[in-house]
Amino acid sequence: MRAVILEDGRPTLVERPEPLPREGEAVIRVVLAGICGTDLEIARGYLDFDGIPGHEFVGVVEQAPEPDWIGKRVVAEINVGCGVCERCASGLARHCPARTVVGIVGRDGAFAERIALPLSNLHEIPAGVSDDAAVFAEPLAAAHEIVDQVSPTGGERVLVLGDGRLGQLCAAVLARAGCRILVGGRHPEKLRRLEHSGIPTASSDDLDEGEFDLVVEATGKPDGLRRALRVVRPRGTIVLKSTYHGEASFELAGVVIDEVSVIGSRCGRFEPALDHLVSDAKVTEGMITARYPLDRVRDAFTRAMQSDALKVLLSP
Amino acid sequence: MRAVILEDGRPTLVERPEPLPREGEAVIRVVLAGICGTDLEIARGYLDFDGIPGHEFVGVVEQAPEPDWIGKRVVAEINVGCGVCERCASGLARHCPARTVVGIVGRDGAFAERIALPLSNLHEIPAGVSDDAAVFAEPLAAAHEIVDQVSPTGGERVLVLGDGRLGQLCAAVLARAGCRILVGGRHPEKLRRLEHSGIPTASSDDLDEGEFDLVVEATGKPDGLRRALRVVRPRGTIVLKSTYHGEASFELAGVVIDEVSVIGSRCGRFEPALDHLVSDAKVTEGMITARYPLDRVRDAFTRAMQSDALKVLLSP
Repeated sequence: MRAVILEDGRPTLVERPEPLPREGEAVIRVVLAGICGTDLEIARGYLDFDGIPGHEFVGVVEQAPEPDWIGKRVVAEINVGCGVCERCASGLARHCPARTVVGIVGRDGAFAERIALPLSNLHEIPAGVSDDAAVFAEPLAAAHEIVDQVSPTGGERVLVLGDGRLGQLCAAVLARAGCRILVGGRHPEKLRRLEHSGIPTASSDDLDEGEFDLVVEATGKPDGLRRALRVVRPRGTIVLKSTYHGEASFELAGVVIDEVSVIGSRCGRFEPALDHLVSDAKVTEGMITARYPLDRVRDAFTRAMQSDALKVLLSP
Repeated sequence: MRAVILEDGRPTLVERPEPLPREGEAVIRVVLAGICGTDLEIARGYLDFDGIPGHEFVGVVEQAPEPDWIGKRVVAEINVGCGVCERCASGLARHCPARTVVGIVGRDGAFAERIALPLSNLHEIPAGVSDDAAVFAEPLAAAHEIVDQVSPTGGERVLVLGDGRLGQLCAAVLARAGCRILVGGRHPEKLRRLEHSGIPTASSDDLDEGEFDLVVEATGKPDGLRRALRVVRPRGTIVLKSTYHGEASFELAGVVIDEVSVIGSRCGRFEPALDHLVSDAKVTEGMITARYPLDRVRDAFTRAMQSDALKVLLSP
């Protein structure tokens, strides 16, 4: 089959053997795959991954140990736990110390014609949800993880720092949870999309002071945390969403004196994300910047790196 | 009256006017005062404080707008809020943006013969609690703040990093809350005191790996957070207790991937600390390293800076 690998950081289309499903695994034909910030980081050497990248996708099940699955449209959770440890037993396979992660750690991803994954990772896409919306299930689940972690009760003053792919989804999820949202960003066309969907925005440069209950750091930049600390209220919470290479530094005394909580946040459960896609068809509207066939994967990565790009899709 | 100020970072005994109580304030004769890590940091220039330092003390009320207070032995909360803002109204004067802090920010402290403080900051010392125990009320309240913030249910695996003044009290408080405690430190005599009080210890150098639910960072050193991140479990919590000058840096991706919570923790409520002193006379046993009269304040600071010192007291 055709698949993408990274050769010296450059995404390259190659021929690869068809995936061999292990026990309990299905083979899924990839219909649509999204390029995520993490994919761009991986291309820069993050995590030393040398398999097929890609972890946001929509597919159709072609083979499965349970025949009912065959032909179903699916999305998939990306962490594959060992299945036997304490964390897997408690439903937290996404923190299993021996986990593989689709297209990120020790397991081939979705920038290919087919992918093999355990049935237990699959979620059938509800009937009313289009492929173009469902391809956002994974990042939307990551945005919903914030709600699972901080349990907003409504009315919280929330600043989302970063107007990119993930920042847009985090803003939509927290607005839906009843928070009073402001998104700070630097990209006029991305801010326009937010304003168009009813979410107030501000230029990041105008956000040097504030009193926010919750700040979501989704800038993807090392100075994001420092900026978040300037505008969070005492006893407020900062949720860190950016994963990238390198260290961040901050004034520790400020965190202690103001008793701020800084919470790392990664993948989330798919159930609330799929519910969200069913109940709010507009949540992903205007998020797709461009589409490319798999053999134009380099153009697709180049487009995804441009500052005005939201989601760039690949169609195998 | 005699009082201590800092001249070029050196504690110096000087003559100062008696404190003038403002409306609602009492005048308290200081009986005993403790030297805290923050006092040593202030002597190094932290927070640019130029008043009388000292915020841990036991005293006797000499003047008060409510005569019932006169003659009572008291300890005092150190944050004095404006009394009218939203935070003061919600009982969080210790986060009032206009607050003064005894011996730290904008208000003279307890390394003096007398101090003026609002009655609302005072707590009468329960009858069975000695002055030597009550002088720990403020740092013990700071240790109890952790329980207020993370609500341990018992059984949590907790590592306290740092065997100093505050680390010892944090360990005692969390052991009392039912946690399984280990304290990591580098000072044999301090570790011995913990072992003697039934708390297991380890050399900090042997703590490069772990799986702790909660890590309390009380090392007072910039690399404490980095060490805490190495041993906290995924989805675990790090409580930061150290306040000092300067920046800390850490690998942001690890916090995000493991969804770690990093929580700053400062002052606490006095009620649980006084209850603790009543119910457990041994909590502060063996914590007093040395006592000095006020005119030997330089010797006292020198002693407090030595690596084997726990609490050094001043008697005005």
